[in-house]
Amino acid sequence: MLGPLQEELVADECEALLVLAPSARDVDLAPFVGSAHIHSAFVIVPRQGDAWLGYMTPMERQEAASTGLRLLTPEALDVARWARGGAGEEQVLAAVILQGLGMTGVHPGRLALGGHPSAGVLQELIHRLDLAGWSTTSGRSILRRLRKTKTREQIDAAARAGRGAVAAMRRVAEVLRSSVAGERTELHFEGEALTVGRLRREIAVILASHGLEQPEGNIVAPGSQGGVPHTAGNDDSVLLTGRSLVVDLYPRGVLFADCTRTFCVGEPPEPLRRAHATVEEALHRSRKNCRVGRKAWDLQVEVCDFLAANGYSTPLTDPGAEHGYVHGLGHGVGFELHELPTFRQVDGREGDLEIGDVITLEPGLYLPSDEGTGYGVRLEDTLVLTEDGATVLTSMPYALDPRAWED
Amino acid sequence: MLGPLQEELVADECEALLVLAPSARDVDLAPFVGSAHIHSAFVIVPRQGDAWLGYMTPMERQEAASTGLRLLTPEALDVARWARGGAGEEQVLAAVILQGLGMTGVHPGRLALGGHPSAGVLQELIHRLDLAGWSTTSGRSILRRLRKTKTREQIDAAARAGRGAVAAMRRVAEVLRSSVAGERTELHFEGEALTVGRLRREIAVILASHGLEQPEGNIVAPGSQGGVPHTAGNDDSVLLTGRSLVVDLYPRGVLFADCTRTFCVGEPPEPLRRAHATVEEALHRSRKNCRVGRKAWDLQVEVCDFLAANGYSTPLTDPGAEHGYVHGLGHGVGFELHELPTFRQVDGREGDLEIGDVITLEPGLYLPSDEGTGYGVRLEDTLVLTEDGATVLTSMPYALDPRAWED
Repeated sequence: MLGPLQEELVADECEALLVLAPSARDVDLAPFVGSAHIHSAFVIVPRQGDAWLGYMTPMERQEAASTGLRLLTPEALDVARWARGGAGEEQVLAAVILQGLGMTGVHPGRLALGGHPSAGVLQELIHRLDLAGWSTTSGRSILRRLRKTKTREQIDAAARAGRGAVAAMRRVAEVLRSSVAGERTELHFEGEALTVGRLRREIAVILASHGLEQPEGNIVAPGSQGGVPHTAGNDDSVLLTGRSLVVDLYPRGVLFADCTRTFCVGEPPEPLRRAHATVEEALHRSRKNCRVGRKAWDLQVEVCDFLAANGYSTPLTDPGAEHGYVHGLGHGVGFELHELPTFRQVDGREGDLEIGDVITLEPGLYLPSDEGTGYGVRLEDTLVLTEDGATVLTSMPYALDPRAWED
Repeated sequence: MLGPLQEELVADECEALLVLAPSARDVDLAPFVGSAHIHSAFVIVPRQGDAWLGYMTPMERQEAASTGLRLLTPEALDVARWARGGAGEEQVLAAVILQGLGMTGVHPGRLALGGHPSAGVLQELIHRLDLAGWSTTSGRSILRRLRKTKTREQIDAAARAGRGAVAAMRRVAEVLRSSVAGERTELHFEGEALTVGRLRREIAVILASHGLEQPEGNIVAPGSQGGVPHTAGNDDSVLLTGRSLVVDLYPRGVLFADCTRTFCVGEPPEPLRRAHATVEEALHRSRKNCRVGRKAWDLQVEVCDFLAANGYSTPLTDPGAEHGYVHGLGHGVGFELHELPTFRQVDGREGDLEIGDVITLEPGLYLPSDEGTGYGVRLEDTLVLTEDGATVLTSMPYALDPRAWED
């Protein structure tokens, strides 16, 4: 893993990469430390040689050792000495990291920065690095490229997250088809009004039993709430027959997976039925168009053309419109919910579809209206790119009608 | 909430506080935006007047509006214009934030920084601010003090997290007392060897049903693994009779709670039994000593004296020792797992126990040894400080023996 990264450091004329994070779950730190249980830590990758892990308390020595990295221990870093006299965390971390840089044998020069430290800590560190003869640059692109192509083990982790998401989505379909319409088209389940909050609890329990959590939450958006793509959905909302329900799940175990289905209990209004059929066709076409060697942006152009031909507005025909198709076709997914490849129009290789990329495809159609006519429809799968095309990691029905989901 | 914060900005001669975060769950952003579902966002708090929220995509307009803050919309911030031509996120965010600062009417001067943005993004922003006549300082202390004292609503949130943690701990006790000893003192549950991983699944499902997650993981550390306080515990480890099991749960809903119990199935060895009794007594004494107006550090000194009198080494008597009592007595808890008040020896008010503080007390005794004699014992509760003393938010038995937990 270090080879390509170190080549990029050399190309960028950097002496080293420093990743500083308040938790080992930091997306920039995770590729180095895996699932080790460390609170405040940093990694130094010199342009050549081994990577080093610095940590702040001897209580984490077993966790730190489990990473297999060369260690900068709290004792060697003199953490206790720097912390004496009630120095702030900004000052302590800056002093510790400068000492760590010295111990790795890296000489002052250009330093690429990564991680998501407290802004105040980083502000102090940059100041201290400057005084010590270092200049700083963003290591964000290097780290994003490092995460783009997944190893076999990482693809397995995304697939595990995908299986949990599928199980949770199947539970949603089961609850919906077990519900009955009460007065004013309100759905009831197990004797009470079926709310978004109740569906969220069912989802969370299934995901937990698969070892997954939802650090970015989820979307369970009924009717017009689903008409705005990133509206999460109100826990108190009661589900109604004849309305759309967008369920977008993006749980994480070691890596994220991401998938969306749209349901309707009872007879769907014709605009919703037609939008759903069109989105399903758009997803199938996009998956066929999705091949190694292509640009992700080209798939966005193709799906816009298809949706426009079906009479819907798109970002290409009506930029800024809030109805029709209003977003990108997909995104890379893994350590972050949104990572490379990008489906935006870019010049560089960040939008290239390559073997080992894990991506989503998520066409959608929206009508944001507070009247009963408002709806959202989105269908999304997570896929891994192979020599032969794209393999779906979130395989399950696409049907609007939860009865069609029965095993 | 803004009043004291703005007074601190004035005292620090800052024109404004800027909190920049890749997610609304950022601990520095959460006090401003609550549970709104926003990806990349920033908050500007001028030294006087209203606070502003900037967000990056119109898809999040309903979520942004739900915060009640004055809004800097993507349209007003010209996000689309800055992002044109494939500019990196570093450049886009820096341009957007400079435009946002201008729109709030704040004049260039000293700017306090908060949040946990990508290091590369912040590095670019600091550079651009410098060119525009701003100087930067750490807003970390201001934000930590803002989070220290909890509102009634926040105390309720911590109490909800505490109730979920208690339910999960009771489930652990239930599984342990339903287990049977197989060959070589290995425990069996439901026909298979009882592992740390199985207990973790049981815990996660109970927490999920309470709407809680574990963004910082948990500790389920049997035998000698529990002898190092921050060792998380190996999923594959099979539990044994006659050994300690440290279970430290710190789930989060809106806020965190944090509690620990130590179990032993079967007859505990005498050193473990005695350590547990001593730790339980230490916790009771600490709780009695815990009163508004005191310094948290003084409680640490008192518990060290008590444990030393019982023959155990402590950080005061044997700094750097790895057996006996080896850590601090507790910490504030809430938005972060570890926040103010601090139990370290500090000069300022950051260690003052005040009404509305939510803290943990967690004495422990450790014997890190790979022989069968190694153990860990820790007992921890989350408490809220009131005029009358400290109220426990994680009320449940302390017993080593899971049979004593039966309802």
